[in-house]
Amino acid sequence: MNQPAISTLDDFRALLRSLPGPDAAAEAAWAAREPQLTKPAGSLGRIEEIARWLCTWQGRHPPRLDRPRAVVFAGNHGVAALGVSAFPSEVTAQMVANFESGGAAINQICRAFDVALSIQALDLARPTADFTRGPAMTEGELVEALACGLGAVPADADVLCLGEMGIANTTAAAAVCHALFGDAAGDWCGRGTGVADDGLARKVEVVAAGVAANRTDDPLEILRRVGGRELAAIAGAIVGARLRRVPVLLDGFVCTAAAAPLHAALPGALDHCLVAHLSAEAGHRRLAARLGQRPLLDFDMRLGEASGAALAVAVLRAAAACHNGMATFAEAGVSDRDA
Amino acid sequence: MNQPAISTLDDFRALLRSLPGPDAAAEAAWAAREPQLTKPAGSLGRIEEIARWLCTWQGRHPPRLDRPRAVVFAGNHGVAALGVSAFPSEVTAQMVANFESGGAAINQICRAFDVALSIQALDLARPTADFTRGPAMTEGELVEALACGLGAVPADADVLCLGEMGIANTTAAAAVCHALFGDAAGDWCGRGTGVADDGLARKVEVVAAGVAANRTDDPLEILRRVGGRELAAIAGAIVGARLRRVPVLLDGFVCTAAAAPLHAALPGALDHCLVAHLSAEAGHRRLAARLGQRPLLDFDMRLGEASGAALAVAVLRAAAACHNGMATFAEAGVSDRDA
Repeated sequence: MNQPAISTLDDFRALLRSLPGPDAAAEAAWAAREPQLTKPAGSLGRIEEIARWLCTWQGRHPPRLDRPRAVVFAGNHGVAALGVSAFPSEVTAQMVANFESGGAAINQICRAFDVALSIQALDLARPTADFTRGPAMTEGELVEALACGLGAVPADADVLCLGEMGIANTTAAAAVCHALFGDAAGDWCGRGTGVADDGLARKVEVVAAGVAANRTDDPLEILRRVGGRELAAIAGAIVGARLRRVPVLLDGFVCTAAAAPLHAALPGALDHCLVAHLSAEAGHRRLAARLGQRPLLDFDMRLGEASGAALAVAVLRAAAACHNGMATFAEAGVSDRDA
Repeated sequence: MNQPAISTLDDFRALLRSLPGPDAAAEAAWAAREPQLTKPAGSLGRIEEIARWLCTWQGRHPPRLDRPRAVVFAGNHGVAALGVSAFPSEVTAQMVANFESGGAAINQICRAFDVALSIQALDLARPTADFTRGPAMTEGELVEALACGLGAVPADADVLCLGEMGIANTTAAAAVCHALFGDAAGDWCGRGTGVADDGLARKVEVVAAGVAANRTDDPLEILRRVGGRELAAIAGAIVGARLRRVPVLLDGFVCTAAAAPLHAALPGALDHCLVAHLSAEAGHRRLAARLGQRPLLDFDMRLGEASGAALAVAVLRAAAACHNGMATFAEAGVSDRDA
């Protein structure tokens, strides 16, 4: 398909209304083959369901896992100046350089599983505005970030891992969640990169103040007012992936928070997405539950960078390999149950 | 090292007393490098701990994951004749043939992650005795199975995945657990390959009767009296792997039950083992807790064949890749926290 172009927020809203649904024929082909495979019915559990999900959202049977891709979006945040992070804002650009030279965790995981990685740095020298004093982004800035995400989806990807880097972005993510779902500001705030008690207390205040200063019921307006560029780009990439029939693995707390406004705007908008792992960042368990998602992995990770998403590519690969490669009872001459 | 040889059960008991401990130097080398890597301290969570565990039990820094191996042991069980399984005993040999021709789930997962697989069929034409009427194995049969496992560990393996195939072996595994840990017989019994309510009720009766008919406090005697050949071979392989400094990934319920007598005989005997996944088979959660293990993965799988263990190789590979390949703060020019 051609690359979807947007110039206004209404263009993006129109794209969101046009999302394709599940591919019933591919799912039916999965359902016809799966019970014939040489194993007790259902004995691969969620691995079977993942194969089904791949078929449904790739729109293809058999499912394919030859070309996994990862995109990491990076952004900077005005609220970083408020002492909500253990690291200074310069680290965002330094880590982008580290991604580009291959030294970060995500590079190692991508290499281990043959995942092609690309990095999209969004205006790092121009942080978003401090959202305790007004909206983080103008509508133009939001649309630019959404468009970056929409355009960053490789058309030939079998699955897309999304991730982020941005000092102070767990604060923006917590604000998005607090604005979307309510609960207490503190319910959504964790230690991020490792902030101490005083920093955590400031973070809760900043999230509460930001949401109070930017009240709206419109999920995409929430993304604009208390989100950030890399969060908006992730939302754009999720929509772009759906339009291109590319299933998505969402990384941890920030990435899932970036996806949440789409879910709030349109139930089912995330049906082609799986939360790849349960982050150790406070709030992620609550957020995954709100989205009806059961994260695939749980290793107490809280790094971001798409690291958990890229790790889950291995699980998808095993799921596709089992569904596609196993012998049937008839082929293997194995007696079916109660034979 | 030379292959350890045993001719009596006392020889095996002596090997068990001679197990090497953790390698403190390799662990110290891990601990010196890990905090220098370009990520917030601890942000890879359990992935960091896995790298530490690999160093400690490989006795080597950096850890290596180039040569993962899997061994699947197969055996047949006298209690299969009592109607405790949804499949007939012939399926054990049929599935061994399926493993050998590459059609089973384990073959696909091993191929996906470059795990070399070998199959050890133990006297399939000669099932163990019906343990409701006396011991499942003679001492000679137990020793033969332990020796098979001891000898099946490739000396050059970086990690060893252990798994099993054996119609009715969840019944034997449940009996081993009930004899070792008490609780009710029904607490350890699940549906295995998918037995219906009446079969499950028979299974609980068989487990209770088997343990009642074979009372002993000696863990290795429990393995002999209510276990099975493939369970004993797994126990042997665990000891053989420790002697050769090969860390072990245990598969689901049956495999973990096979390991449990070693733990009961010698606390710490399983320190070089990780339970790779939480099986959907009832009893595995309880068993893992008794062993102080937190399974790495949870996909509602209940297939056996080392399928969950081989899947977890991907996680170990990512852990080694991150620890070994990441840039340090100094190398990458990234500001450390609060800089």
